[in-house]
Amino acid sequence: MPQVHIELSRLQNDLLELAHIGYDPISKGINRPGFSEADMQARRWLMDKLEKEGFSAALDSAGNVIGSLYPDWDGPVVAMGSHIDSVPCGGMFDGTLGVLAGLECMRVARDLKLDLKFPFEIYAFAEEEGRFGGMMGVQAITGQLTPDWLEKAHDASHKLLKDEMEKCGLNAIDALNARVDPKHFHAFLELHIEQGPVLERIGKPIGVVEAISGVYKWLVRLIGKANHAGTAPMDMRSDAFMGLADFAHEIPRIISEEGTDKSRLTVGKVELKPGYAHTVPGEAEFTLVGRDTDPQIMRNLADACRKVLSSIARKHNLMFEFEQMSWLEPQAMSDQVVKAFCNQAKKLELEHVVMPSGAGHDAQYMAQVTPTGMIFVPSVGGVSHAPDEWTHWQDIEKGANLLLQTALHYAH
Amino acid sequence: MPQVHIELSRLQNDLLELAHIGYDPISKGINRPGFSEADMQARRWLMDKLEKEGFSAALDSAGNVIGSLYPDWDGPVVAMGSHIDSVPCGGMFDGTLGVLAGLECMRVARDLKLDLKFPFEIYAFAEEEGRFGGMMGVQAITGQLTPDWLEKAHDASHKLLKDEMEKCGLNAIDALNARVDPKHFHAFLELHIEQGPVLERIGKPIGVVEAISGVYKWLVRLIGKANHAGTAPMDMRSDAFMGLADFAHEIPRIISEEGTDKSRLTVGKVELKPGYAHTVPGEAEFTLVGRDTDPQIMRNLADACRKVLSSIARKHNLMFEFEQMSWLEPQAMSDQVVKAFCNQAKKLELEHVVMPSGAGHDAQYMAQVTPTGMIFVPSVGGVSHAPDEWTHWQDIEKGANLLLQTALHYAH
Repeated sequence: MPQVHIELSRLQNDLLELAHIGYDPISKGINRPGFSEADMQARRWLMDKLEKEGFSAALDSAGNVIGSLYPDWDGPVVAMGSHIDSVPCGGMFDGTLGVLAGLECMRVARDLKLDLKFPFEIYAFAEEEGRFGGMMGVQAITGQLTPDWLEKAHDASHKLLKDEMEKCGLNAIDALNARVDPKHFHAFLELHIEQGPVLERIGKPIGVVEAISGVYKWLVRLIGKANHAGTAPMDMRSDAFMGLADFAHEIPRIISEEGTDKSRLTVGKVELKPGYAHTVPGEAEFTLVGRDTDPQIMRNLADACRKVLSSIARKHNLMFEFEQMSWLEPQAMSDQVVKAFCNQAKKLELEHVVMPSGAGHDAQYMAQVTPTGMIFVPSVGGVSHAPDEWTHWQDIEKGANLLLQTALHYAH
Repeated sequence: MPQVHIELSRLQNDLLELAHIGYDPISKGINRPGFSEADMQARRWLMDKLEKEGFSAALDSAGNVIGSLYPDWDGPVVAMGSHIDSVPCGGMFDGTLGVLAGLECMRVARDLKLDLKFPFEIYAFAEEEGRFGGMMGVQAITGQLTPDWLEKAHDASHKLLKDEMEKCGLNAIDALNARVDPKHFHAFLELHIEQGPVLERIGKPIGVVEAISGVYKWLVRLIGKANHAGTAPMDMRSDAFMGLADFAHEIPRIISEEGTDKSRLTVGKVELKPGYAHTVPGEAEFTLVGRDTDPQIMRNLADACRKVLSSIARKHNLMFEFEQMSWLEPQAMSDQVVKAFCNQAKKLELEHVVMPSGAGHDAQYMAQVTPTGMIFVPSVGGVSHAPDEWTHWQDIEKGANLLLQTALHYAH
């Protein structure tokens, strides 16, 4: 244990206390979608907590909670944080860990009366999880929102963001004012659970994120001809599903030819029409989500998918069309911050691995305005976005200590 | 044109008249599900028509309409027929052609005052299309129904067969009395549209059915593990959909190794869970329907599917389970009737091909009690069970004349 370290019991208490807000005793999951009542309750809880600890707390015009170690500090800060909204029926660590570990770092600095050149500030970003598209709060802070988007954004049940924000006492258009001058940040550090199986599988407690994968989402349609599954001979069919199956079968080859071990191609949703057992599928509509940490590789993967789909469509006598629903470029973390995390991990004798983040995080926006890095701690069974999301307390402690040491490194 | 021949205009009139019953002007499809009001209206229409033409007409206790050329005839008959119920939003020829062409044959025999040793009788079987499971009327005639089934059978909206029959003035359990002594039949001949693309593709007006394919239906589940599509590396996934895709990709190989050109394997319905674009599918549930005309080949296909699925499941780290929803053995048509159709087709100078029926038909039950055969006429575009089901009138005429000549061959 280094001389300066976090106190796990305080962080544990905060995590467990926050886990009660939005908890559903039936599913045992946590429901704090962005700008829901439970989400706002969690934000008020965090502000109370900050104030009770003697820190300053503010809710900005985008719904972000900002807690500052030195009130009225004007100069650059070492910012830490993540989000405290959740997916429906989510777990207790996703996002919250990064915010509450930051809070714990502030307590350590306060208790030791550390005199920091770049004091700590924590951010609980609003609506990261995607009720209205995701990462809304950090986009506000980094100046990426537009009035048009704020006007039109809605959730899956067609409730408008602006109406839901109004219920929370916020004016959507004012979210534009939440932008923070990049000069305000000296660095941004985010501790997060991995939400994947890699750290557990390789038996290391710490992942240092080198880049957040870019991601594209296609809605693909293969259109053939619905036929009676008995009367249509195999060689006279235009079976849309067989086209999809042949494409999916090629995914490992596409990745081995065009991708890397950081590439991902996923068919997650499939709808066949008419979708009857005794009818040759006339149409297959499916999602294709591609990811890589390298922008050029991402483009190469997308090109290869398009070519393979075209060629398979010709072979099966199908029409092929696709709509690119989204394309988000990869975001590298700061080399400097990656090195700092690795150095501090070595000092703390923490086994660690440099790895990509396949999922998106607030850090990808912060990286555009300030040196930014992320630490992952292992997810038991790789599970997240589910009630049984879990990370061992020993790993929480290790991750939080690495966050603390690296934050202190930047703060001096 | 042979000396004895059908009159197309009469057959046309009947087909067009019947097509008004249950016609939906919006979809332009025909809705006469078994034991619906429209279905019963069609049965009354047919009985009126038979009586007006001077034939005897009866509605048996299973809802079958039986029309006889010689009333009170006790000896064996040459039976013809099919069904007049329809799928929801179906076409105007499916089933009706076999019934009304039989009626036209009776008119020809009447007009020419033919003295037939085995007079004609026509059957409009009840509930062929499957509202309550299908081929209920012909199963009644051939003695295949059970009291238990009649008690429990229900449609997709959980309406009981017995209740729906009661609305039609029929007592379900009495359907058991509809059985006809096999000695009553000298032969059974069914004219039907192909409902597939083969005849049109090869440019022949007549298909002589050699066998009706057997069919099995499996509900297959591959169970892996749902994971975040970004955080789960490709080699740490248990992607249920990739298992399905790899299996489907093997279907052509399975058929080329174990099957024939009469084999069919179809994945018609697929459901992925959770079915989100950004989540690796944890479960794939799908239907697999296999068909062949040879019972041993059907078993070999099923065995191969099971083995391939097991092996793919192991490879992808999935659980594999399946439920055999149904298994219906193939039914050969009578060699003698096949030859008779071919001989008569030669005499009429009709190009024809001997072919399997991939779809089920009433003939498959009649074949169990009497020498039975089927004629197919081409379906434009292979389309059936849809409003744009069509067969050219010239082909209808050819098929009906072949039916007439073959029926006369058996009648003398």
